[in-house]
Amino acid sequence: MITRKILLTEDEMPRQWYNILADIKMNPPLGPDGKPIGPDSLSKVFPMNLIEQEVSQERWIDIPEPVLDILRIWRPSPLVRATFLEKALNTPAKIYFKNESVSPPGSHKPNTAVAQAYYNKEFGIEKITTETGAGQWGSALSFACSHFGLECKVYMVRISFDQKPYRKSMMATWGGNCVASPSTETKAGRDILEKDPDTPGSLGIAISEAIEAAVSDESGKTRYSLGSVLNHVMLHQTIVGLEAKKQLEKVGDYPDVIIGCAGGGSNFAGIAFPFVHDKINGKEIDIYPVEPVGCPTLTKAPFVYDHGDIARYTPLLPMHSLGHAFVPPPIHAGGLRYHGMAPTVSQLVTEGIIEPRAVNQIDAYRAGIILARSEGIIPAPETNHALACVIEEALKAKEEGKEKVILFNWSGHGLLDLVAYDKYLANEMQNIELDESEIEESEKVFADFPKPEIIKNR
Amino acid sequence: MITRKILLTEDEMPRQWYNILADIKMNPPLGPDGKPIGPDSLSKVFPMNLIEQEVSQERWIDIPEPVLDILRIWRPSPLVRATFLEKALNTPAKIYFKNESVSPPGSHKPNTAVAQAYYNKEFGIEKITTETGAGQWGSALSFACSHFGLECKVYMVRISFDQKPYRKSMMATWGGNCVASPSTETKAGRDILEKDPDTPGSLGIAISEAIEAAVSDESGKTRYSLGSVLNHVMLHQTIVGLEAKKQLEKVGDYPDVIIGCAGGGSNFAGIAFPFVHDKINGKEIDIYPVEPVGCPTLTKAPFVYDHGDIARYTPLLPMHSLGHAFVPPPIHAGGLRYHGMAPTVSQLVTEGIIEPRAVNQIDAYRAGIILARSEGIIPAPETNHALACVIEEALKAKEEGKEKVILFNWSGHGLLDLVAYDKYLANEMQNIELDESEIEESEKVFADFPKPEIIKNR
Repeated sequence: MITRKILLTEDEMPRQWYNILADIKMNPPLGPDGKPIGPDSLSKVFPMNLIEQEVSQERWIDIPEPVLDILRIWRPSPLVRATFLEKALNTPAKIYFKNESVSPPGSHKPNTAVAQAYYNKEFGIEKITTETGAGQWGSALSFACSHFGLECKVYMVRISFDQKPYRKSMMATWGGNCVASPSTETKAGRDILEKDPDTPGSLGIAISEAIEAAVSDESGKTRYSLGSVLNHVMLHQTIVGLEAKKQLEKVGDYPDVIIGCAGGGSNFAGIAFPFVHDKINGKEIDIYPVEPVGCPTLTKAPFVYDHGDIARYTPLLPMHSLGHAFVPPPIHAGGLRYHGMAPTVSQLVTEGIIEPRAVNQIDAYRAGIILARSEGIIPAPETNHALACVIEEALKAKEEGKEKVILFNWSGHGLLDLVAYDKYLANEMQNIELDESEIEESEKVFADFPKPEIIKNR
Repeated sequence: MITRKILLTEDEMPRQWYNILADIKMNPPLGPDGKPIGPDSLSKVFPMNLIEQEVSQERWIDIPEPVLDILRIWRPSPLVRATFLEKALNTPAKIYFKNESVSPPGSHKPNTAVAQAYYNKEFGIEKITTETGAGQWGSALSFACSHFGLECKVYMVRISFDQKPYRKSMMATWGGNCVASPSTETKAGRDILEKDPDTPGSLGIAISEAIEAAVSDESGKTRYSLGSVLNHVMLHQTIVGLEAKKQLEKVGDYPDVIIGCAGGGSNFAGIAFPFVHDKINGKEIDIYPVEPVGCPTLTKAPFVYDHGDIARYTPLLPMHSLGHAFVPPPIHAGGLRYHGMAPTVSQLVTEGIIEPRAVNQIDAYRAGIILARSEGIIPAPETNHALACVIEEALKAKEEGKEKVILFNWSGHGLLDLVAYDKYLANEMQNIELDESEIEESEKVFADFPKPEIIKNR
């Protein structure tokens, strides 16, 4: 009988994160004057120890002991051989997934939430503000803050706040305080509400609110935390791929294909970056970040300099962007409704090291049902996008008669997102695609910004 | 650093269940004529292979390979040293829990659901009917049926059906079909609705409907499945305690105290029975089943012969019972709202081998919050009752200055039960206690039934 769960002991857990900035050159973030920003300009937003990590070029960065201690609540996470899916698809491919749904908040997000809460605490911060889309990130940060005695304030995108009331309860259970965004608590929120009182909200808006709430606290004891996009977030997530690598070694396998869904990029980066290192050094691997056709940042939008939020509080980041004022359509995968993409992920796409794919939501949920009825776990809407791609690749391997090794990241469970499954099963789900004119329109906002350099690392 | 998660490999998973009937003599179930029933009288309700298992006296029963194969989706489950709880309570006690929340449906229930679906399939059955309280059992059986290609029909207690709509979605995702009980689909349901159209429903009512739906299917291809109470259900759950025993051996510990919440008794039996065997053979262990004060079957009701359901479709079972027509008050722990108790658990209480405890729901949720903010996992409302007792025992150990080993069963997570946490956090939760006259009234129904013999096994 094939062993399904390839486990690591707590002693075998990685003690260092992998920093991809040691392996790729990047365009720098720019300030309002169009010049590269220095660390000081972000010091009201983030604690200095995280800013230093954001710009570090060290390949390996030690994971602090108190962070490891909390990660051990659910880590190392299992690497699972998806024997029931393989059987359902009758494919010769060997399919493995990293099960990140086992964390208490239910996704990969606490990998960085715990680290960020730790560094903030170390720096003397008492309160953290943040945004959340589907609620996974806000839950993860509430969970992390409860361990370090930090106050946690979450601005949750209005449409998800209304659709997923349980997420607010979850945050409250861990002591977090969650409000719908746009809110009346910030200038950014009030401005949006004045223009459009019925807006569904967006991550771009919620980020503006959370940053404003942090920098406007005159005590100086509040900072902002971002759950994706930034370099240090990608860094913290690499524990996923580093564990997976060790686990695959135990069974003598190495992936031919790696797949992760991509909203801001951190779940994808977590599983992929340690293998991107190998690819840069000559390994042949197909690496696919998967996004929704309803928010096609990597597959349809250009590589530009743009802001991470609608109020333009963030620096200009070199990334694929649909425009900082873009409000993505209300697809069910709230975690994939973001106009931008991690600069590191964007850079890798630009030079062809990874190849983005886009999936429509009906195909995503069809895949989710297949997985729920074979592997058991009900996947998060975001994960479903990766799953559609996994099934496609597994069937391709069958056509080609190849015993490919496919590795993907099961980023979270969908237990608080079941309404969308009802819709799918009742045949009431619709695909949402953007038309070209909408994209052209939304991209006007960065027309006058500086353009990033085209850098080739391979 | 103390290892938190004590793991077993899939190869170390128990290959046999422990059958407590080899170690204790019991009163037999009785038919309508007051005489012990034979296996044939249940053949329209259960498949014969499960009926044989129900009455088996073999101490060890092999777990079939196809059952093991599916259990391996989440088993062996981790035994966790609750280091963060120990620290929060500053107790010298060593606290361990078996984490049964890691199964796809989120509780211990699939341990028996998978086995029951397998035996039904083997016997040529095509459809299974059942009841569910909070929804954990209906979800588990839907999950199990999806693996064996069986149709699954679930009658869900009305109050939970309304409070927890996500449970229905979960069952549907696995292909199960769930309706609110009482329904208009059965005579039992219609009779109740006629008398009391606004009834919140009860497990006793839902059981009647599910049995009726099974036995009235003229094709003969439908059977009923029960998620607790019966001997074979307790048997299937013993894998929990058997794993825990192996895991504790690995770290050189043995429990002084064992705690599990008890509704029908299966979660408690799962963790406790393999240790009850040791206690009968001379080991000193305090073993506590914990129930809500709002449904005090073991702590307030007598040991009698009574039916398992309101329509009196089941045989007379020797058990602690509040009366088969009793509709428990709407406490949040839906899985603990049952008038009866497993005959095996009842027998052990009767002879003092285990000692029942009762907890009110505010204390239960207070404990749940302490656990969520220390150990991370948000507990199910049922689990919260066990947790209140765990905390009490851990604080007692502190007072006494004793390094006791406490083992408990984390029966499930509360991710689909978060509304009650909101209530608790808003100080809107109330304790619900029965007054003596209500209990006296409800117990009249079994006044004329035969009385069980008092049997002492120790």
